[in-house]
Amino acid sequence: MCAIFGIVDHHEASSLCYLGLHSLQHRGQEGAGIVSTDGSEPFAYRKKGHVSEVFSSGTLHRLKGTAAIGHTRYSTTGANTMANLQPLLMKSGLGWVAVSHNGNLINAPTITANLEKQGSIFQSTNDTEVIIHLMARSGQQEISEALIHALKLVEGAYSLLVLSRESLIAVRDPYGFRPLITGTLNGSRVFASESCAFDLIGAKYEREIEPGEMMIVPFNRPKGLKSLFPFEKKERKRCVFEYIYLARPDSLLFGENVHEMRKALGRKLAKEQPAPDAEVVLPVPDSGVAAAIGFAEESKIPFDMGIIRSHYIGRTFIEPRQSTRDVGVRLKLNAVGPTLKNKSIVVVDDSVVRGTTSRKIMKMLREAGARKIHFRVSAPPTTHSCFYGIDTPTRQELLASSSAIEAVRQFIGCDTIGYLSLEGLMEVAENKAGKGFCHACFSGKYPTESTG
Amino acid sequence: MCAIFGIVDHHEASSLCYLGLHSLQHRGQEGAGIVSTDGSEPFAYRKKGHVSEVFSSGTLHRLKGTAAIGHTRYSTTGANTMANLQPLLMKSGLGWVAVSHNGNLINAPTITANLEKQGSIFQSTNDTEVIIHLMARSGQQEISEALIHALKLVEGAYSLLVLSRESLIAVRDPYGFRPLITGTLNGSRVFASESCAFDLIGAKYEREIEPGEMMIVPFNRPKGLKSLFPFEKKERKRCVFEYIYLARPDSLLFGENVHEMRKALGRKLAKEQPAPDAEVVLPVPDSGVAAAIGFAEESKIPFDMGIIRSHYIGRTFIEPRQSTRDVGVRLKLNAVGPTLKNKSIVVVDDSVVRGTTSRKIMKMLREAGARKIHFRVSAPPTTHSCFYGIDTPTRQELLASSSAIEAVRQFIGCDTIGYLSLEGLMEVAENKAGKGFCHACFSGKYPTESTG
Amino acid sequence: MCAIFGIVDHHEASSLCYLGLHSLQHRGQEGAGIVSTDGSEPFAYRKKGHVSEVFSSGTLHRLKGTAAIGHTRYSTTGANTMANLQPLLMKSGLGWVAVSHNGNLINAPTITANLEKQGSIFQSTNDTEVIIHLMARSGQQEISEALIHALKLVEGAYSLLVLSRESLIAVRDPYGFRPLITGTLNGSRVFASESCAFDLIGAKYEREIEPGEMMIVPFNRPKGLKSLFPFEKKERKRCVFEYIYLARPDSLLFGENVHEMRKALGRKLAKEQPAPDAEVVLPVPDSGVAAAIGFAEESKIPFDMGIIRSHYIGRTFIEPRQSTRDVGVRLKLNAVGPTLKNKSIVVVDDSVVRGTTSRKIMKMLREAGARKIHFRVSAPPTTHSCFYGIDTPTRQELLASSSAIEAVRQFIGCDTIGYLSLEGLMEVAENKAGKGFCHACFSGKYPTESTG
Amino acid sequence: MCAIFGIVDHHEASSLCYLGLHSLQHRGQEGAGIVSTDGSEPFAYRKKGHVSEVFSSGTLHRLKGTAAIGHTRYSTTGANTMANLQPLLMKSGLGWVAVSHNGNLINAPTITANLEKQGSIFQSTNDTEVIIHLMARSGQQEISEALIHALKLVEGAYSLLVLSRESLIAVRDPYGFRPLITGTLNGSRVFASESCAFDLIGAKYEREIEPGEMMIVPFNRPKGLKSLFPFEKKERKRCVFEYIYLARPDSLLFGENVHEMRKALGRKLAKEQPAPDAEVVLPVPDSGVAAAIGFAEESKIPFDMGIIRSHYIGRTFIEPRQSTRDVGVRLKLNAVGPTLKNKSIVVVDDSVVRGTTSRKIMKMLREAGARKIHFRVSAPPTTHSCFYGIDTPTRQELLASSSAIEAVRQFIGCDTIGYLSLEGLMEVAENKAGKGFCHACFSGKYPTESTG
Repeated sequence: MCAIFGIVDHHEASSLCYLGLHSLQHRGQEGAGIVSTDGSEPFAYRKKGHVSEVFSSGTLHRLKGTAAIGHTRYSTTGANTMANLQPLLMKSGLGWVAVSHNGNLINAPTITANLEKQGSIFQSTNDTEVIIHLMARSGQQEISEALIHALKLVEGAYSLLVLSRESLIAVRDPYGFRPLITGTLNGSRVFASESCAFDLIGAKYEREIEPGEMMIVPFNRPKGLKSLFPFEKKERKRCVFEYIYLARPDSLLFGENVHEMRKALGRKLAKEQPAPDAEVVLPVPDSGVAAAIGFAEESKIPFDMGIIRSHYIGRTFIEPRQSTRDVGVRLKLNAVGPTLKNKSIVVVDDSVVRGTTSRKIMKMLREAGARKIHFRVSAPPTTHSCFYGIDTPTRQELLASSSAIEAVRQFIGCDTIGYLSLEGLMEVAENKAGKGFCHACFSGKYPTESTG
Repeated sequence: MCAIFGIVDHHEASSLCYLGLHSLQHRGQEGAGIVSTDGSEPFAYRKKGHVSEVFSSGTLHRLKGTAAIGHTRYSTTGANTMANLQPLLMKSGLGWVAVSHNGNLINAPTITANLEKQGSIFQSTNDTEVIIHLMARSGQQEISEALIHALKLVEGAYSLLVLSRESLIAVRDPYGFRPLITGTLNGSRVFASESCAFDLIGAKYEREIEPGEMMIVPFNRPKGLKSLFPFEKKERKRCVFEYIYLARPDSLLFGENVHEMRKALGRKLAKEQPAPDAEVVLPVPDSGVAAAIGFAEESKIPFDMGIIRSHYIGRTFIEPRQSTRDVGVRLKLNAVGPTLKNKSIVVVDDSVVRGTTSRKIMKMLREAGARKIHFRVSAPPTTHSCFYGIDTPTRQELLASSSAIEAVRQFIGCDTIGYLSLEGLMEVAENKAGKGFCHACFSGKYPTESTG
Repeated sequence: MCAIFGIVDHHEASSLCYLGLHSLQHRGQEGAGIVSTDGSEPFAYRKKGHVSEVFSSGTLHRLKGTAAIGHTRYSTTGANTMANLQPLLMKSGLGWVAVSHNGNLINAPTITANLEKQGSIFQSTNDTEVIIHLMARSGQQEISEALIHALKLVEGAYSLLVLSRESLIAVRDPYGFRPLITGTLNGSRVFASESCAFDLIGAKYEREIEPGEMMIVPFNRPKGLKSLFPFEKKERKRCVFEYIYLARPDSLLFGENVHEMRKALGRKLAKEQPAPDAEVVLPVPDSGVAAAIGFAEESKIPFDMGIIRSHYIGRTFIEPRQSTRDVGVRLKLNAVGPTLKNKSIVVVDDSVVRGTTSRKIMKMLREAGARKIHFRVSAPPTTHSCFYGIDTPTRQELLASSSAIEAVRQFIGCDTIGYLSLEGLMEVAENKAGKGFCHACFSGKYPTESTG
Repeated sequence: MCAIFGIVDHHEASSLCYLGLHSLQHRGQEGAGIVSTDGSEPFAYRKKGHVSEVFSSGTLHRLKGTAAIGHTRYSTTGANTMANLQPLLMKSGLGWVAVSHNGNLINAPTITANLEKQGSIFQSTNDTEVIIHLMARSGQQEISEALIHALKLVEGAYSLLVLSRESLIAVRDPYGFRPLITGTLNGSRVFASESCAFDLIGAKYEREIEPGEMMIVPFNRPKGLKSLFPFEKKERKRCVFEYIYLARPDSLLFGENVHEMRKALGRKLAKEQPAPDAEVVLPVPDSGVAAAIGFAEESKIPFDMGIIRSHYIGRTFIEPRQSTRDVGVRLKLNAVGPTLKNKSIVVVDDSVVRGTTSRKIMKMLREAGARKIHFRVSAPPTTHSCFYGIDTPTRQELLASSSAIEAVRQFIGCDTIGYLSLEGLMEVAENKAGKGFCHACFSGKYPTESTG
């Protein structure tokens, strides 16, 4: 998971790009970057760290020009090194090209090996670099033609912003795995992964970039944008996990609000997996809050914030050597004893991956006095790895990939456990946002032929 | 507001002190420090920044010994300079003494002036240093005697931890303005401002240090602690604002849980200031969440998280020069449009100081589509400055100190506004936690004769 | 000008490489780097700054393996950015290759343009990268074959160390513009730009790598090294400016000691340009010291250190805004008044480039009381730019390129001025070190056909 | 050893103070600081490191006002902590006072103990703080009266600059151990440890502050300065080691030029300790250069720079773990083999303290091929510790304190060794600069009664 943001035709392009990335920080915390241009030279800055640490006012000042693209990185392919931070900026016979990419290209290793045999030299271990090499070798003179040529050769998930001296191009792969939206800010064209970026800068949401669409904004006529559909059409396969966990609740995503979607999942969960004897519904904050509100609404059991989340978690933390306590999870979360003491409680979380954190939370709730714990998850069991840009662990590490439901319950340490069914999930999602979702992480049904 | 933490007779004293400060980070973010001792030399480290940034494992390793006190600073008296970070560590004829202080000494400037006339030289502009100078000039040989001598000369609020080569001493002023609790961790004695620090390290809560109590833990017999009441007895005046805003919801404070207290204030608020036509109750996160839950419960209006708080606010933030938008507040908070669009909403916050943030939130909610806004505050109007350790602005800056309620409503920009009454507040607080509160910030009734 | 160092078959390869670079610091202060290998993976570290700042013991510890090459950079081609620091480390179909380069490739821009047309993508603006791209496209399987193929296509100056998973290769261009020597350290093979690096680590000097020679040290048989001469033979053209200014006085360079060479130049200068009335000979420290000693010896005029050089010049320096004084040069140099007051003095410097510093020194000496100043330069007037790796200014900036000798004297502000003649220089240099020098910066006679 | 600098009545006071400290860097490299004032508030900045690293243009900009004092620290008394950096700035009943001190107060520990008994609290372990405490307790209203009161109670070496809101005061102890001079810069009054600071900023040297003199420059009438002699008169005892090693060669010190003094010592040394068979005289650079020139002049043996000093010694240096080589000394110094091979050489150094570096140099020269080494030292054997501000080791560590001359020679590893005699030293120094020197480090004759 990563975030991308772009803006054309604005005299504070890099500052607005910075703000956009700030609001998309949840999609990637390892590093961030911006490339801007005045229509001639590119200006670039990339660094590890959070957006607010990466950029200073001096840095932004040096990112000149009226067009800019940005990226926040959450490592998927490629090790976490400086060279892998995006936007990638490279010079070839086509001139310079900068690329921000959200997604993952399944056949990148094969293409890289082939190009190296022909004398190409790769800078990074980043799958995105493949696109630029394919463009450089396309024989095309136009950036857009070279890009179409390159993208026809890659397979996988990509929402892309491509900046050059002449245009900003936005593209979304034919499956539409990852989101990409466009809008306007006082007449300037903007692009972002999620609409919360538009809210922050005051931009007006217009629409999604469609799966398979390429939108070209030429700098000499920024309002004269062109929309193409140069690729073979596919059935759309939007990532349902964006709704469940990835996106910010205040965002419009695939056309629907995330918070309301999550509440609906919570209501469905309450119908499928009720907990009739429970006295209070508690979310695991913050990701479980919306589903817990929906669960409480449907079940008529009172909602309460019986688990408190701390806002002061630093990046590093030093644990006492001989402590017998799970200090890690308690630094972030703590139970409010009097709120749950001697009660039968429902605890709602959005998903379970490895299960180790859930297990620690249950232990904490027991120690705080909970009498009975009904653990409810507003998604199906996560059984398969994602090859389209989410950093899920290998199958071996996924708790639900091998364990029967009772074994999961025992490992986690709750009294009852209930997941939302895949059918329930799809019913809610399709009801609100229409057909066409990838649910491979729950079902193993991968839309692409190869899976890396 | 500041936090203090102390531990005696534990082989990982400084590591546990670090964890304790971590959990008390909400009480002071400007800087932190620890002084530890092996019963002979003191080891000190203080730095600006959050606890997780201040200390490294190397630093903690150098903070040797089995006793330690710590402090997180939120500037009250004295400019924000290195010299004002605590624990203060100073050497005098009594040997070295380290002090962590939560509170504010009203007569510190007078005492400082007098001592300077007699040739004393002050290092900091920190009121706490007065205590050490008074100790040094007491003529006493014993640390505890010197401390009693000094404290008899100061006036104001203090919860103190005093470390020397022979003991750790905990004291709370006779009014008991600020909290201070004690407990045990596998037999080691611990002290903290709030119980959430005990939860993190797994310590057992025992009781409050009483107003006017001095507890001495000698290193040679750490279980042979002594409790004294060396000061003139006063009516207790615990800070009610600790319940309203300062403390962490999961803490026991003055013997009662903070989250439950806030829910009770929300219920009382719903009775005093109902909003019958409202369709949904939204908290201003995170400080308004508990009261909003209470309000929703009492009023039977559904609770929802229609305002989202971002966790990625850096310390610095660069605003575009010509933006017309209030980016500052939107970086932290954003409205979930579909949740409140065209609705009559109740917005619950814990208190209003200057009113400028509330005004921006109302504007954001209007832009997101709220039809009608009932703003409800789970405390009375803040009309007076605090002289006992909270950094409230001067009276001129307090919105409610001069404005009539209708002017406040217009400034903030809501349709109706409702505060909890002082009587309502006191009824709820005294019902749960007994009599004896300072409410000077709401009433102007200062318990001490002078007010600085 | 840059420095290169390499070592094979030593268990502390990177530590010794670090020491070698330390002693070659005078050849490049902008940045430094080391790439080491265990015969499988490469380990790399590069940073701006002096060698002692670039590396920490932690960094060296992570540079594992028994072979390493290093580089200190003094920018010649390419802007001063991180990407241009060396050793360059790149991955191609040949596997990874690391290159340290001292020199300058004249036809690099042409080659780069051609390769970009064929789809190659360059990372840096560094001429050295051309070699790696040519290797990658050579169609060869062997690193050494690919390197020979590449070097046959480039023109200019290069002393190179090339590290791969199987060998370290040292090469010097057929003209031999820049130095490169080899030796042994307890049986391990070492390479360096100058012999002072061997003195520091205790290595034994063996011989120069000959112009046009390629020496291959395979890791599996480090003592079984091979020497080839794969290029068309050229007349050797060693850089005479290395003797005049660049090299360290304690180094053996092109087989002769630099300090002794400079003293000989000073003696020749005294014969060609005597100053019979002078009472004392003063060097401009440190670069003029050896020639001044030679001048004093030949002329029988006493030598003295009447100009003092400070050792505490930081990288940055803040000048008062309204000072009327040339503080810059005086921070570094100051005259010893009593040593030269009312005297006729000879001031000896090694060369004059722009002349602005010389002018400031003359002014300083006048203010200190010198009665008469005979300025003597132990090299001919610098009239042409260097295209073989020295960062001389453009011809327009060279004082002697356009000004007659009398104009130069007036500009600098001395009473008499005397340069060593080109014939005198060549006589001394060839006498000691044999025929075959490039003196294009003094004569404009460039050995290569093109000059960039 | 430390340096002090002060300036009054100049609109760029702190920038000139910075330059002055820059030129006095050789007197202390541990840290530096400046306190300036606009006649009302003090502005202070102190940090560890070299002057050029300590101050930025931003820092200097914040050091406002028209008067400033500065200090570079070379630790003598007190550990190397931030709190011990100078100028000390403290607030007392007299207002704020800042002090820069070069020297050492022998009875500081006794006074500190007494004052602590009376309730004073010390911030640092710095002897200078004693002066400020004595001033604060003097009962005087005037800064100058309080200062006189304080200085009458201390014993030892002090050249002081004292800044307050009303004046800058310069004082030198009655013995005049350490230097202190005054001059003018376009009418502004300046003070410095050595005259090289005046050369850099273009100030005019006027005279020494006399032993026992106090010069007061009131801000309201900066030209109306007053000179007092408030202390009991003593025989002057200027530090002869300043001439031998401490001061910069281009400085006027105690009225005489240091470089010329050192040449004279070298000439005397050649007379006392000739080396008739030697072929060349080599200095240990840089401190032995002047004496070597004098030695060569007197003995008619040619001078040469056969030992090269590197300018690129960083503060930290990482030695290979298993190196058998003395890399430390060789990083700084290297022999020029061809210059000394098979020769009988004279090596001149200014003094020998522990002898370990001399021993390493001899080893290096032998390895470079020297046939015979005559080691000559332009000072007597250092046999006693200094209590007046120079950081000499304890007597046990002084090579010459216990060893007979032959044992010293064997330890160092030269063929012959020759020191300048105490009589010879005194004859030269007194001839040029008049009577009145402290030579306790060579003779053990301490001028003060106690010696700490």
